[in-house]
Amino acid sequence: MFDTNCPVCRTAEVISGKWTLLVIRDLADSSLRFCELERSLDGISPRTLSLRLRALEEAEIVERRTYPEVPPRVEYALTAKGKALGPLIEDMRSYGRRWLPNDELAGTRPLV
Amino acid sequence: MFDTNCPVCRTAEVISGKWTLLVIRDLADSSLRFCELERSLDGISPRTLSLRLRALEEAEIVERRTYPEVPPRVEYALTAKGKALGPLIEDMRSYGRRWLPNDELAGTRPLV
Repeated sequence: MFDTNCPVCRTAEVISGKWTLLVIRDLADSSLRFCELERSLDGISPRTLSLRLRALEEAEIVERRTYPEVPPRVEYALTAKGKALGPLIEDMRSYGRRWLPNDELAGTRPLV
Repeated sequence: MFDTNCPVCRTAEVISGKWTLLVIRDLADSSLRFCELERSLDGISPRTLSLRLRALEEAEIVERRTYPEVPPRVEYALTAKGKALGPLIEDMRSYGRRWLPNDELAGTRPLV
């Protein structure tokens, strides 16, 4: 479906996944541990979160940091490539709010 | 897959389709006739273009203008809602070029 020759399409591919967007939103302010992400992403299964994080690591959008403590502490953080998606996601949020009202669930809390 | 309660996800849904992005790109500068769009969107079938245009009309991103000439002339143009996607698509292009190099087809012409 996506044309790898088109930079817009390549970006669309990255930002199309729902969990991807939510993980980037959650990591925008600070790095988080797996259990903190799990709690924030209400409804995600540990397996799905683990797969999403691994895919985001492979895409170099998220990095995994291990701190040599006892017990070892692992945190996930946005890379520069991940942080660069921030303004784009903000623009998508503005567009969605302005031009794509949610008729089905009016009045409920926005997820992102 | 998409959460209608999330404005970012609603926008992602609109801009995810390859032909949608290309139609918006083509109409960004001026309104076009069906045959002009068909020529510009190399490889699209008339049926697919027709379906895409109808979906974009229903989403109020594109409007169909009929001019009472002989024979009648029909043109497609972006609405305000469609034009508002322009900066977003530009940002996606910048992000894709900067952060998502196309290793498979290096050196070929970008589509969008």
